[in-house]
Amino acid sequence: MVKLAHILVATFGVLLVLNGCLARQSLGVPPQLRNECNLDNLDVLQATETIKSEAGQIEYWDHNHPQIRCAGVSVSRLIIEQGGLYLPTFFSSPKISYVVQGMGISGRVVPGCAETFMDSQPMQGQQWQHGQQGHQGQQGQQGQQGQQGQQGQQGQHQQGQQGFRDMHQKVEHVRHGDVIAITPGSAHWIYNTGDQPLVIISLLDIANYQNQLDRNPRVFRLAGNNPQGGFGGPQQQQQQQNLLSGFDPQVLAQALKIDVRLAQELQNQQDSRGNIVRVKGPFQVARPPLRQAYESEKWRHPRGPSQSPQDNGLEETICSMRTHENIDDPARADEYKPNLGRVTSVNSLTLPILQFVRLSATRGIIKGNAMVLPKYNMNANEILYCTRGQARIQVVNDNGQNVLDQQVQKGQLVVIPQGFAHVVQSQNNFEWISFKTNANAMISTLAGRTSALRALPLEVITNAYQISLEEARRIKFNTLETTLTHARGGQQQLIDQIVEA
Amino acid sequence: MVKLAHILVATFGVLLVLNGCLARQSLGVPPQLRNECNLDNLDVLQATETIKSEAGQIEYWDHNHPQIRCAGVSVSRLIIEQGGLYLPTFFSSPKISYVVQGMGISGRVVPGCAETFMDSQPMQGQQWQHGQQGHQGQQGQQGQQGQQGQQGQQGQHQQGQQGFRDMHQKVEHVRHGDVIAITPGSAHWIYNTGDQPLVIISLLDIANYQNQLDRNPRVFRLAGNNPQGGFGGPQQQQQQQNLLSGFDPQVLAQALKIDVRLAQELQNQQDSRGNIVRVKGPFQVARPPLRQAYESEKWRHPRGPSQSPQDNGLEETICSMRTHENIDDPARADEYKPNLGRVTSVNSLTLPILQFVRLSATRGIIKGNAMVLPKYNMNANEILYCTRGQARIQVVNDNGQNVLDQQVQKGQLVVIPQGFAHVVQSQNNFEWISFKTNANAMISTLAGRTSALRALPLEVITNAYQISLEEARRIKFNTLETTLTHARGGQQQLIDQIVEA
Amino acid sequence: MVKLAHILVATFGVLLVLNGCLARQSLGVPPQLRNECNLDNLDVLQATETIKSEAGQIEYWDHNHPQIRCAGVSVSRLIIEQGGLYLPTFFSSPKISYVVQGMGISGRVVPGCAETFMDSQPMQGQQWQHGQQGHQGQQGQQGQQGQQGQQGQQGQHQQGQQGFRDMHQKVEHVRHGDVIAITPGSAHWIYNTGDQPLVIISLLDIANYQNQLDRNPRVFRLAGNNPQGGFGGPQQQQQQQNLLSGFDPQVLAQALKIDVRLAQELQNQQDSRGNIVRVKGPFQVARPPLRQAYESEKWRHPRGPSQSPQDNGLEETICSMRTHENIDDPARADEYKPNLGRVTSVNSLTLPILQFVRLSATRGIIKGNAMVLPKYNMNANEILYCTRGQARIQVVNDNGQNVLDQQVQKGQLVVIPQGFAHVVQSQNNFEWISFKTNANAMISTLAGRTSALRALPLEVITNAYQISLEEARRIKFNTLETTLTHARGGQQQLIDQIVEA
Repeated sequence: MVKLAHILVATFGVLLVLNGCLARQSLGVPPQLRNECNLDNLDVLQATETIKSEAGQIEYWDHNHPQIRCAGVSVSRLIIEQGGLYLPTFFSSPKISYVVQGMGISGRVVPGCAETFMDSQPMQGQQWQHGQQGHQGQQGQQGQQGQQGQQGQQGQHQQGQQGFRDMHQKVEHVRHGDVIAITPGSAHWIYNTGDQPLVIISLLDIANYQNQLDRNPRVFRLAGNNPQGGFGGPQQQQQQQNLLSGFDPQVLAQALKIDVRLAQELQNQQDSRGNIVRVKGPFQVARPPLRQAYESEKWRHPRGPSQSPQDNGLEETICSMRTHENIDDPARADEYKPNLGRVTSVNSLTLPILQFVRLSATRGIIKGNAMVLPKYNMNANEILYCTRGQARIQVVNDNGQNVLDQQVQKGQLVVIPQGFAHVVQSQNNFEWISFKTNANAMISTLAGRTSALRALPLEVITNAYQISLEEARRIKFNTLETTLTHARGGQQQLIDQIVEA
Repeated sequence: MVKLAHILVATFGVLLVLNGCLARQSLGVPPQLRNECNLDNLDVLQATETIKSEAGQIEYWDHNHPQIRCAGVSVSRLIIEQGGLYLPTFFSSPKISYVVQGMGISGRVVPGCAETFMDSQPMQGQQWQHGQQGHQGQQGQQGQQGQQGQQGQQGQHQQGQQGFRDMHQKVEHVRHGDVIAITPGSAHWIYNTGDQPLVIISLLDIANYQNQLDRNPRVFRLAGNNPQGGFGGPQQQQQQQNLLSGFDPQVLAQALKIDVRLAQELQNQQDSRGNIVRVKGPFQVARPPLRQAYESEKWRHPRGPSQSPQDNGLEETICSMRTHENIDDPARADEYKPNLGRVTSVNSLTLPILQFVRLSATRGIIKGNAMVLPKYNMNANEILYCTRGQARIQVVNDNGQNVLDQQVQKGQLVVIPQGFAHVVQSQNNFEWISFKTNANAMISTLAGRTSALRALPLEVITNAYQISLEEARRIKFNTLETTLTHARGGQQQLIDQIVEA
Repeated sequence: MVKLAHILVATFGVLLVLNGCLARQSLGVPPQLRNECNLDNLDVLQATETIKSEAGQIEYWDHNHPQIRCAGVSVSRLIIEQGGLYLPTFFSSPKISYVVQGMGISGRVVPGCAETFMDSQPMQGQQWQHGQQGHQGQQGQQGQQGQQGQQGQQGQHQQGQQGFRDMHQKVEHVRHGDVIAITPGSAHWIYNTGDQPLVIISLLDIANYQNQLDRNPRVFRLAGNNPQGGFGGPQQQQQQQNLLSGFDPQVLAQALKIDVRLAQELQNQQDSRGNIVRVKGPFQVARPPLRQAYESEKWRHPRGPSQSPQDNGLEETICSMRTHENIDDPARADEYKPNLGRVTSVNSLTLPILQFVRLSATRGIIKGNAMVLPKYNMNANEILYCTRGQARIQVVNDNGQNVLDQQVQKGQLVVIPQGFAHVVQSQNNFEWISFKTNANAMISTLAGRTSALRALPLEVITNAYQISLEEARRIKFNTLETTLTHARGGQQQLIDQIVEA
């Protein structure tokens, strides 16, 4: 008897475990690892992780969240405080960004292109003298090197009597409303020149053909040291150091022809400022005057200068390829209704570099009484980020199920998968930026003058919905707008509906 | 002793379970989830699931079958009964179809393109009057709206005294022998105008770069309601409703400027007709006369009309891009042997839209004594569907193993992976359509005038197979045909061989 | 008490197993199956498997190794002995190769292209007579066939009174320094014409868009029989036969219009020579004289002939597309420093077929005192293979961690993932070939005249690394070289450093 009991116990245990194994087995491969998308229930997403730096912070959305993983992207929000400098960084995936707030200057490294920007004035006397004084020893050594012919012609030329003229690659202004595309491997830095925080929302397209690694976002730092590490998930909780940290300082010294002590400083080992550092004093970088602000936005940029840049015919060479486009300018609107708002897109036809990174963006600014007509994305996933106001967003999946019906507010994100129908009802001057994973993302509306219903013959509509010809005619022709329309009920009625639901 | 026994029992149990865990572990991740292909044994595949509708049915092949999953596709067969209408539907993946039987008219929604088709006659009096009478209330309301200026100029123009002229996007004839390409997100409908069922075999290329979701086929319905749901697998057994069902009817009403009751009708909630519905009465849709049938096929289409369309020089703009190509016309054959049969391909050079969807198709019609010479696909997977007759098909994998040697009949499907050598021996007027996952699929034959063996120097052949120069010469030069040849033994011999095996 | 003990034992067992299950669960889906890259620790890799043939061998790197799997490639080294013939083979993935040593001739099958090479002399009398005598029966039959009109015009023409002139597709010379690109499905053979083993290192890009199967390397043989099987992993330990083996010999005989006995010989069933066979006697294949060797390398090819080929304006048609490019020629160097060495790249701009296969290669030959400046690949994975000498290679990952710091020697391989910074210090005349998974792979250096640091404004550098302006100036301008520089310390110092570490 005792034996039997024990056998039962053991057997039961075995069964339990076997059961556990089997049960867990089916869970063992979570959908995202199977490259499958579970899209039966979508969420409005907030940033889940914040990495603080000396002069700002980076906030990440969890890139392991099923929706974000399914869309094959990673999203972050960069906040650079006044006088803050986002240190040079690159990615293995293409990136598209939108400047939500503020203004700054930015540089992008294009290997092999010339340093076309040079100071017209030598470096400021004081700082330069300070540098000279503080390192007189090396200065002497430098002189020796110059005599050894290592300094070369350029060095001789640059170093005049009163100072030194820096030369570097192109520096551009970025400001509120700019969409910026960055190719993989291209290091870039940003400095906040304004008097308010510079806020940039960015999307990494890690499912892009140009990312040849796995489906994890990978960020590479040329400078800085981030004790917190992290990138939207528990995987990379280890410290993130800059690239130069991984090399033997001796080797760095040889490569840069500097002494080992200076090579060690390049590794930022003792640096705990993170990836956004505070610049002391003026930030002396050669740059052209700010682009002319568009009329309607001039008040936001009181320093708006006089000259507008002109296309030079070379803008599609790699070195001078345009990477910026401002889509807040009302004059550029693709859809414009004075009483309702406007919608503007930037794609490979307006910004050619987008053909290369296979991404595009749409900006919308609508009033409290406006509705974006129901539509779906034909050939792209859409990642919608609310920059202001609030709206009710409904999303419908391929089974016709409502998978999202929520209020979206400033700072929140919604993933709208390819083909999923959705409608946006402004509740309070809703403004948003949508990134789309296609260089020429196309939409198909479900109501309005260019809608799918309008394209159908009346006979198809009457038979499909079992309605009369007259009803079908109203469905096809009543709404004359294309994208934006007036929401009759007004915002209060909508809020009531949500509360009821 | 007792203790020891129990320990043994427990340990044995542990080992058993451990063993079970480990064994199952290796099975835990099925090949298709590992994105791996188990191609050691191929099958001739039948449709496994049927979704019935009011006026037809859709049959699906199991898209989780290892071979179909490996090829990255999903296959279905659409059967529309006489007078049946396949309701507007779109997919997140590109689709290529072949009309196996029957004739019909089809419309494809291209967002933003003009409604270029307009009735020359107003809608039939009776139906129209019925619509007017049945909804006189709304008609009055409609008049008010017109006064309010919401109706717009177009509405005024369209609505004459005696009726109403519909306008919609292009409608095209489809018929037996047509290959049709559909881009992702493009909604399309089909109506059977013939006197026999309209049968269409379709392939969704879900591994295509344009599908930005997962490797599941996803179908989106603009209309209809399918209580059965389903798409070739147990995953989506839930009811599938149309896209509009997922929206709040209030919102739909606002977007379409209709009343809420009509908006609810658009959701087909009480509709159990499925995705293919029966049209009562005549199907009054503006369309051009049917394309001229090719001479040899005219008898099949007694209504074949007089005018053939002419290219207008704009056929590659998106709005008017050709999406159809008939490959049953003998005059278009790429390989033609009066006594053996013919083979015709359509690729991006003959139908430019295929460059965009990265798919192509080959049609073969061979007599009972013919053999398609052994060959392999260099750069594509091939999905072969038998439309008539029967043949013996052999397929050889990368290890030189025979992985398929079976008779294939009408309605059956064979997946032939990239690089796998295969031979087709007709046994009874074999006819097939092959879809290939490349816009310019290339084959390499293993026998005949353009074969790989013919390209090799004799010295390579003699040394490779340890045969004499004379034997090598025969191998290279005996078969002068390129693709089709005469099978000496005749069909009875082949049948005997299969029976023996 | 006894019971409790037993329960404890059983429970403990259960827990153990449960634990085992869970622990293994997390291991259950290895990173490579999750399409994830574990790149925290890289290795210097050796070939792990050798498949011996009659006249040579093929060595494989384990394609399941995490690094190689992450890079999406498979690497092998082919060694063909003198007089050895590598039998016709093709792959489902694009391939890029580099000839490490020796010389030979190669043929590539391009289906549908003409047999443009024809013997000017008939086949040697003796062999031909042997062939004729040994098969006089078939010869008679052949004559009958000729009378039946099956032989055709070409056969009549080719077969003269004294012998037979072979015709076949293009044959090209390959030699030390050649980079060769092969498209998927393109069968090719190689014969060693030199007096030393012909050694070729090859990379299959299985993650390439042209491979439509899974992420396993798949090799297809037109001839030969490999009892060992295998391709760098335990999965395919079964025998690998040629493609023709999988067909019914009856069918082969019908297709090739030969007798069944000869068809059986094509299946190499009794053949155990493997994929590289020994050619007896002279290898009589029509081929042009060898390309002119470049001056500096002429001593290596004493048979270097007189005429150099000229571009014919058609070189980009498929039939005559160039597939070879010699990158050992010093005159072609992209980077050249007489005292340090040279670096040469071949990409789609120099060899257009690379645009199609999306691969490129870089060759480096540097002296013992040279260093390749730190850099990273912007848009490609790099697979570096050492052909001679030795070097210390350091690689740094995206977290700034050193993930490789080892000596690399002749025959060893290093995978350098996209974005990972790395530095190469020659220790003894280091020579290497790097394959890159992009048709136009771009690098970004971290030191030197075209480096990322040079592109940055001084202000960015001073603030990033907290150094003085003078120090920043040195970092930017001290190193004037672009890719190669002199390593000050010399090799002994570096060896000491490794020993210490």
